Amino acid sequence: MSNTVYIATSLDGYIADKDGKVDWLHAIPNPTGSDMGFADFMARIDAIVMGRNTFETVVGFDVPWPYDKPVFVLSNTLKTVPDALADKVQLIAGELDAVVSELNAQGYQHLYIDGGKTVQSFLRQDRIDELIIATLPVVLGGGIPLFSALPAPLHFKLVKTQTHLDAIVQSFYQRATD
Amino acid sequence: MSNTVYIATSLDGYIADKDGKVDWLHAIPNPTGSDMGFADFMARIDAIVMGRNTFETVVGFDVPWPYDKPVFVLSNTLKTVPDALADKVQLIAGELDAVVSELNAQGYQHLYIDGGKTVQSFLRQDRIDELIIATLPVVLGGGIPLFSALPAPLHFKLVKTQTHLDAIVQSFYQRATD
Repeated sequence: MSNTVYIATSLDGYIADKDGKVDWLHAIPNPTGSDMGFADFMARIDAIVMGRNTFETVVGFDVPWPYDKPVFVLSNTLKTVPDALADKVQLIAGELDAVVSELNAQGYQHLYIDGGKTVQSFLRQDRIDELIIATLPVVLGGGIPLFSALPAPLHFKLVKTQTHLDAIVQSFYQRATD
Repeated sequence: MSNTVYIATSLDGYIADKDGKVDWLHAIPNPTGSDMGFADFMARIDAIVMGRNTFETVVGFDVPWPYDKPVFVLSNTLKTVPDALADKVQLIAGELDAVVSELNAQGYQHLYIDGGKTVQSFLRQDRIDELIIATLPVVLGGGIPLFSALPAPLHFKLVKTQTHLDAIVQSFYQRATD
């Protein structure tokens, strides 16, 4: 079982800008259409867990639904998902540990944990096994942060690092025993 | 003329922990005594500009004074430096632009800008030309942040990235025209 974060941030650790936008993620010239390892990553996860904010952001993108794995949206307020996504997205509520246990029991062993608040909740409970962080060469100066306060430091082990588009530094970390 | 930041941060962007300590910087096994490029970097700068907090932190380290280049401490409150450092450290006060102009006029063309608040002041005025950031594989969950709010995003260009001790990702950035 594993819970993995795969995300992009600014140099100052924001995953969206002051207006909640991620346009800056797509501002880097990408003539070869590199997916920065996203397809390879998606191939090794069983399902995606995201928060309501991230879900609504993705729904708002003017692109086809980008995920070919089941998506579970953590929300205590949403009651339904759009009809077009009914076979792709399920709502899920409750305590994080219970949610993860339930998904694992359903056979979803390798989870992609997405969205600022969701990642922060998982980190606070030390439930993140792997961090894959792509750092973009911009200091945004404000926005939605990837990280938040923790009761104690969490140590990770650097597995590898690679660059994309001569601009993005993507590093892979696994949780280390303290 | 150039103003360069050379600094280490946690994955969540802290340069010191909740107690203001940097012990975690030295927790990574370093059997070969790698200096992570510090000597090479120091060889190409003319002087160091740091804030009072950083100065007092360095003075508090139980090691010999680590800098062989002139150090200028930005402070409006400090009146004297310890006798032992009288020929190594000078106090300097005033507006950032005036301070930089004065140092440049004295022949200090390439400045190493150090310390959280000092770096933040330089970034707010878009006076940082180069960022050299070493990211350590720990999420501290709180502490003294490297970055702070900015009036507008600052774009940089990735120059190179390298790893140290199989643990630290050090990336070099230069300010890009927007």
